[in-house]
Amino acid sequence: MVQAVLLDIAGVLYDGRIPLPGAIESVAKLQQQSVPLRFVTNTSRQSPQQVKQYLDDLGFNVKQEQLFTAPAAVVAYLENRHMTCYALVHPNLDVLFEPFQSTAPDAVVVADAGERFDYMHMNQAFQHLMAGAQLIAIGDNRYFKKAEELVLDAGPFIHALAYASDKKPIIVGKPSTTFYEVVVASTRCAAQQVLMIGDDVVADCEGAIRAGLLACLVRTGKYRPGDEARCELQGLMCADDLPAALELVGL
Amino acid sequence: MVQAVLLDIAGVLYDGRIPLPGAIESVAKLQQQSVPLRFVTNTSRQSPQQVKQYLDDLGFNVKQEQLFTAPAAVVAYLENRHMTCYALVHPNLDVLFEPFQSTAPDAVVVADAGERFDYMHMNQAFQHLMAGAQLIAIGDNRYFKKAEELVLDAGPFIHALAYASDKKPIIVGKPSTTFYEVVVASTRCAAQQVLMIGDDVVADCEGAIRAGLLACLVRTGKYRPGDEARCELQGLMCADDLPAALELVGL
Repeated sequence: MVQAVLLDIAGVLYDGRIPLPGAIESVAKLQQQSVPLRFVTNTSRQSPQQVKQYLDDLGFNVKQEQLFTAPAAVVAYLENRHMTCYALVHPNLDVLFEPFQSTAPDAVVVADAGERFDYMHMNQAFQHLMAGAQLIAIGDNRYFKKAEELVLDAGPFIHALAYASDKKPIIVGKPSTTFYEVVVASTRCAAQQVLMIGDDVVADCEGAIRAGLLACLVRTGKYRPGDEARCELQGLMCADDLPAALELVGL
Repeated sequence: MVQAVLLDIAGVLYDGRIPLPGAIESVAKLQQQSVPLRFVTNTSRQSPQQVKQYLDDLGFNVKQEQLFTAPAAVVAYLENRHMTCYALVHPNLDVLFEPFQSTAPDAVVVADAGERFDYMHMNQAFQHLMAGAQLIAIGDNRYFKKAEELVLDAGPFIHALAYASDKKPIIVGKPSTTFYEVVVASTRCAAQQVLMIGDDVVADCEGAIRAGLLACLVRTGKYRPGDEARCELQGLMCADDLPAALELVGL
C-alpha cells in the first residue's frame, strides 16, 4: 500500500547528535528497496548542504536530491515571484538569502534564527511588515529538542510578528500543503500512497494528512506523552520509533 | 454625565519626550475640578515611582495614588495568591519582582522587557512554562511609539510564549476588565460614568468599553488612520487630542 516514504530528520533519525536505535539500518534498507525516499525538514539553522553533510557524518546514506528543506522552498518561492526580502534567519543561511536582500523588501522571511531572535532584529522585521512587506515563514514549529532540552523554534517568533503587524504568515515549509505537494510530486506516487513519518504531531502528521498523505507519529525526539491526542484529523498512525513505523506498514 | 476620567499616559499626555499640545493644561484643569482623575498605563519599562517622576519632569501634576500601572497590578496579583515567579521584565522592574523569584516558579511574568527579549530569556521563560508555570502578562499591547518609530511592546512576545507552550496568558493590565474595575472602584463612581481616554484602540478603548466604561480614542501617539474601525464594540468616541476629548464630554 505504501509506495513512497517521507522522513522528518531531527527526532526521527537522530536525537541530540546520536543516531536513534535502528535508524541508520532503516534508512539503508529503504535506500536498497525501490521505494522512493525523501527527507523533509523545516530545520533552518543549516543550509541544505550542511544538513546533508551532518547526516553523512552521522552515518546516514542520503542523496542531496532526496533532501527537501523549508529554506530551499522559500528561495524557490521568492525566485518564482521575483520578490526581495529581509531575512531574519540563522547566519548559516545568510548566503542563501543574500541575493534577495533589499532595504524596502517585498517580504520578511522568518526562519529559526536562534540567537539572532533579539529585540533589535525583531523590531527591524516588524518595521518592514508595517511598511507593507508580506510575512513569509519557514514553518510554524513551536519547539525542538536540543540535547536534553526543548528550545524555541521559529514558530513562536513568527506568531509574535504576525500579532504585532496584524498579518497572516505565509507558511512555506511543513505543514504547508504546497510543500508536501512538491515533495510528493518528486516521488511520482499518489499522495494517498505516500507515508510521512515524524515526531511533530502538527507540522509532520497533521500537515501530511491535510495534504492527503498517510502519517505516522513516532515516540522519539520531541514527542511528549499525549501528543497523539493533539492531532485534530483522522487517520494518525503511531509507532515507538522509525523501525517500528516501517514494520507497521510492512516495509 | 462623565463623573471621573481615566487617562492613558504615553501618546495621550506626551509623545517622544514632549508634552502634547494642551495636555499639561488639560490635566491641571481636571486636577482643579472635583472630577476624580486616574492615570492608567501598561508601561513597564519604569517602576511606578519612575513613571510619576517622568510625568513630574514633563510638567504634569500627578499624585502617586492617582497612578495605576500594570506592573503594580501584577505585584498585587502575585501577593494575593502567594505565588512565586520568573520575571521577564525590564531591569528597572527587577527590584519590584525580586521578592517573588524562584527557580521553580508558579508563574512566568512578562512585561515589556525591551532588549531583554532575547533568545536566551525567551527560552528560559518557555522552559518554566513547560514545567507547569502559568503565563501572566502585563498587557498585550502590540507596539508603542518611541521617538518617530513604532517599536514592539510586550504583546507579541507574550503571544510567542503562549503559542510555544500552548497556554492562555492571564492579562493583568489593560485591557483586562479586572484592572479597569480596580481603577474604577478607586474613583467611587459607577463604571458607566467613567471615561477612559487613550491612543490604543484595543487596550484602552475596547478594554474600557468591555468593562462598562465610556471610551474616547485620541488621534495622537501611536494612533494610525483607520484605528477607529478596529474597535469591535459599539460606543467608541473619537477626538483629535486630549483637549478635544474633554471638550467633547463638556469637561
